[in-house]
Amino acid sequence: MKVRNLLGERLKHVSDESQIESQILMTKGGYMKPVASGIYSLLPPAQRISKKIQSIIREEMDRIDGQEVLFPVVMPATLWQSSGRYTSIGSEMVRFEDRGGNKMVLGMTHEEAAVHMADHIAKSYSQYPFMIYQLQTKFRDEPRARGGLIRVREFTMKDAYSFHTSQEDLEKYYERAYEAYVRIFKRTGAKNVIAVKSDSGMMGGNISHEFMLLSDVGEDTLVICSDCGYSANMEVAECITVNEETQSAPLVKVATPGSKTIEEVCAFLGKKPEQTAKAVVYAYNDTDENIVVFVRGDTEVNETKLRNLLGREIHPAAAIDEESGIVPGFIGGVGLTDKVTVVVDRSLKDLHDLVTGANEEGYHYTGFDFDRDYKKPFEYVDVAKARSGGICPVCGKPRLTISKGIEVGNIFQLGDKYTRSMGMTYLDSDNTEKYPIMGCYGIGVGRLMASICQESCDEYGPIWPISIAPWQVEVCNLRVTDDKVRARSEELVAALEKAGVEVLYDDREVRPGFMFADADLFGVPVRAVISQKTEERGVIEVSTRDKSIKTEFAVGEAADKIAGLVRKMLSEYDI
Amino acid sequence: MKVRNLLGERLKHVSDESQIESQILMTKGGYMKPVASGIYSLLPPAQRISKKIQSIIREEMDRIDGQEVLFPVVMPATLWQSSGRYTSIGSEMVRFEDRGGNKMVLGMTHEEAAVHMADHIAKSYSQYPFMIYQLQTKFRDEPRARGGLIRVREFTMKDAYSFHTSQEDLEKYYERAYEAYVRIFKRTGAKNVIAVKSDSGMMGGNISHEFMLLSDVGEDTLVICSDCGYSANMEVAECITVNEETQSAPLVKVATPGSKTIEEVCAFLGKKPEQTAKAVVYAYNDTDENIVVFVRGDTEVNETKLRNLLGREIHPAAAIDEESGIVPGFIGGVGLTDKVTVVVDRSLKDLHDLVTGANEEGYHYTGFDFDRDYKKPFEYVDVAKARSGGICPVCGKPRLTISKGIEVGNIFQLGDKYTRSMGMTYLDSDNTEKYPIMGCYGIGVGRLMASICQESCDEYGPIWPISIAPWQVEVCNLRVTDDKVRARSEELVAALEKAGVEVLYDDREVRPGFMFADADLFGVPVRAVISQKTEERGVIEVSTRDKSIKTEFAVGEAADKIAGLVRKMLSEYDI
Repeated sequence: MKVRNLLGERLKHVSDESQIESQILMTKGGYMKPVASGIYSLLPPAQRISKKIQSIIREEMDRIDGQEVLFPVVMPATLWQSSGRYTSIGSEMVRFEDRGGNKMVLGMTHEEAAVHMADHIAKSYSQYPFMIYQLQTKFRDEPRARGGLIRVREFTMKDAYSFHTSQEDLEKYYERAYEAYVRIFKRTGAKNVIAVKSDSGMMGGNISHEFMLLSDVGEDTLVICSDCGYSANMEVAECITVNEETQSAPLVKVATPGSKTIEEVCAFLGKKPEQTAKAVVYAYNDTDENIVVFVRGDTEVNETKLRNLLGREIHPAAAIDEESGIVPGFIGGVGLTDKVTVVVDRSLKDLHDLVTGANEEGYHYTGFDFDRDYKKPFEYVDVAKARSGGICPVCGKPRLTISKGIEVGNIFQLGDKYTRSMGMTYLDSDNTEKYPIMGCYGIGVGRLMASICQESCDEYGPIWPISIAPWQVEVCNLRVTDDKVRARSEELVAALEKAGVEVLYDDREVRPGFMFADADLFGVPVRAVISQKTEERGVIEVSTRDKSIKTEFAVGEAADKIAGLVRKMLSEYDI
Repeated sequence: MKVRNLLGERLKHVSDESQIESQILMTKGGYMKPVASGIYSLLPPAQRISKKIQSIIREEMDRIDGQEVLFPVVMPATLWQSSGRYTSIGSEMVRFEDRGGNKMVLGMTHEEAAVHMADHIAKSYSQYPFMIYQLQTKFRDEPRARGGLIRVREFTMKDAYSFHTSQEDLEKYYERAYEAYVRIFKRTGAKNVIAVKSDSGMMGGNISHEFMLLSDVGEDTLVICSDCGYSANMEVAECITVNEETQSAPLVKVATPGSKTIEEVCAFLGKKPEQTAKAVVYAYNDTDENIVVFVRGDTEVNETKLRNLLGREIHPAAAIDEESGIVPGFIGGVGLTDKVTVVVDRSLKDLHDLVTGANEEGYHYTGFDFDRDYKKPFEYVDVAKARSGGICPVCGKPRLTISKGIEVGNIFQLGDKYTRSMGMTYLDSDNTEKYPIMGCYGIGVGRLMASICQESCDEYGPIWPISIAPWQVEVCNLRVTDDKVRARSEELVAALEKAGVEVLYDDREVRPGFMFADADLFGVPVRAVISQKTEERGVIEVSTRDKSIKTEFAVGEAADKIAGLVRKMLSEYDI
């Protein structure tokens, strides 16, 4: 492929420099073009990378006995009604009516389609387990598309669905899928990917992992133990707090005029935040009834854990129910009515002598003790956010760190949520009808490409891992008007292509600096430069985009040596 | 791949035997499952075939310098408004609003997206020509999905778009695309494919060809010269008629009570149909004004040619304008008012002494002569349907035949319809801004697969060409409970797979007839059978699905011989 024929342009600047690196570089490099918010066309270099990523994914899915299928993008609403998700999923699912007035949806995931395909076919236990997967376009009407290909509305995704006759069998397969994912990320050159336990969200099911590429621009917050390697999404990470021993004290109401925040109250009373019970007010989405969550004054509420605990949708309260007894700024464990749900975090367990609001304007209590003074039955639960320096729930050491990550893949144990709701059964060996147990496994191809760019780049452009690079070698002809330089360049291109190397050839009549700037944006791993100077010296300059190699090969052996270098670099991704 | 693990079931019967063969066989064989009208999920065998077809298409597109890209499925209405097609295309285009209230469409073709991608990038004549293509899901809200994958609403399509600086350059490239299409159909094993000139329809532009797979179940009617090979879609085929010499006669009004059809009038007056001027009445869609088309009595009106001639949408008239002068049953060249558009087909040229209606209940004229008696200016035009036995417009011989075909691909010369309407220009070598000239080139992957099945099958199942077959060899183990038979079978499977052969292995404990019936439905080109009998004789039975080969190989050399047979069969598609 010649650069002069390649459709695309390389830009010196982008209009919005506030974008993240990968977005800026892939825009500058002519990888993609926005068609609408969160909807992109992929230009040839990006499509080449995408295809290589897809090819690696296919190989690994086949390796764990996956069977490739194809589900439709457009599905009838009836299919989603049968699982209940037609109503439970909100406006991120596109709905429309076809010309016949039938309600249709655009696929944002394909659990229903997978069950539809397998239903009435996988009728006997002897046909299990099996896994089907596809690479297909998906559409999610994201309210906040951002980061170029990182968070889009339309995307190419690999989604896989496995079917089992027991939880044990699912777990065995889940482990294989996990290993396949590890191989996929290694083979695509994604370096800093870790698997974290996560919240299953709208997918249902219990155990799930997200594969997170660690990056400052990630939208997910991860809790990682620097000692034992434990990791979890903040949304589900356990919070363990250890309380210093405290002494009981009598419950005393004290005037705290104008002191509303934890900081103000602590300053006024000479207490530390961990000596207070912080109250945060939420409301149920459906009824608007209030929830008061108590956590130790130095911790925060984890809304996802709270939501999962309550099993209902909630939001930070904008209004206070007058009959709740809640007095904003002075909320505490005394004086709340039955109109309010009270949740007490376990960080408050065994703490005596707490400061808490009196639910009375201008007053707090000291000496509060939940076990002694909170007059209704309650349990200590885990709804606080894990913190940096916090205690690891696995090894028990206070070595938790907080990182940001981009979710590049996820795997879920779904259980029988879909087969049961859609009525898919098989005949088991004991002659009874049962619901198959499912797992599902997703990877967003474009997001993975952009994430790899994000972690593998410099200020000049992407540094593509050779396993997914759009081309393996770029040949730069610095003097196309010189017959000898041109002949040498074309000879090299031909020899490399004959050796099976993918070559991008730049023979445009442009300044070297211009050509190299473009080459940096193409991010091709190996570069060969031919000029009048190299011709005079009988060599070809060869370097790698990651700057690890900068050398010269004699013209006679350059093609072989470069092809050898490419093979060697590729072999590092052969696992 | 083992049949026992393959997701899918083979059926003995389908519920609707009125379907076309390919649909029945692909349903029986477990290739696809309907999700909604015209929307299918593809099961593993079909997806394997689809991927092989896609791979052949990619190779041939790359061979003519195509650059693979990816356009979105969901596009903003604004993009389609810019070309004018948002309004000109009817309800076959799905329209919906996204969560932000923006009007969106589902892509049914991607000319607009291609122009959007190239616009502002291909700014200089030196960047032309180039071709971009994609393989992507498309959705057309077809009112009459039918024939399984032949006519669906959602489908995988290869669509390509070339950009040029001159009509000459487009024509040169068009020729290359044409040749690439010929190679694609040969390589996929589609046998009876011919290219016919066609009507460009909603795509705009002038010259276009459809690649038609000849089949009785085709929806298109083709005109083919059995002598010189000329071919055209009936929609655009020229009609040439030669009239016997006739003598002028005086115009005489004759009573023809109750004789309304050509047959009745001919019988009453003792004339032949070719001595009459048949009148057919249409109406404009927008104004309902009438059009009267005169053709020679033994010919039919070609509505597509009429539509193209008038440049407006028309339909057979349901109502007659009272001021038109038209008297149904007795319509003729006399007495029509200016309220009606009159079209005279060239089949009536030089004909004297015609029978024509008098536009008066119960009367016709004889002796009518358009040149002498039709009192308004008119031209003879070509709006009649070509007929079997008609005259070939190329070689002039009366050897036209009429066939049915399935459109498996098409290529269009678009001109500057899209670049002009969307305002895409480039700077030409003469320093002026010009609109690029475009071509576009489509192939429906699923339709091609089903069409090949349609022409390459027997009553028991598809006979897949080895170049696209889901597997190359099926190994049938007829006695899985026999250790020797099982060991021999597994040894053969392993040896074949080691040799790079794609093997489907059936080791289910089922009757031979059952296994062979399934094998016929899989349509795998080469079959190897191992049983207790073959073991006793030290051979493996080998046959081809198309019955051209039925032989035995000694067990020791079977793997090599079968692999050799596969290579030989594959080589027939290497062009």
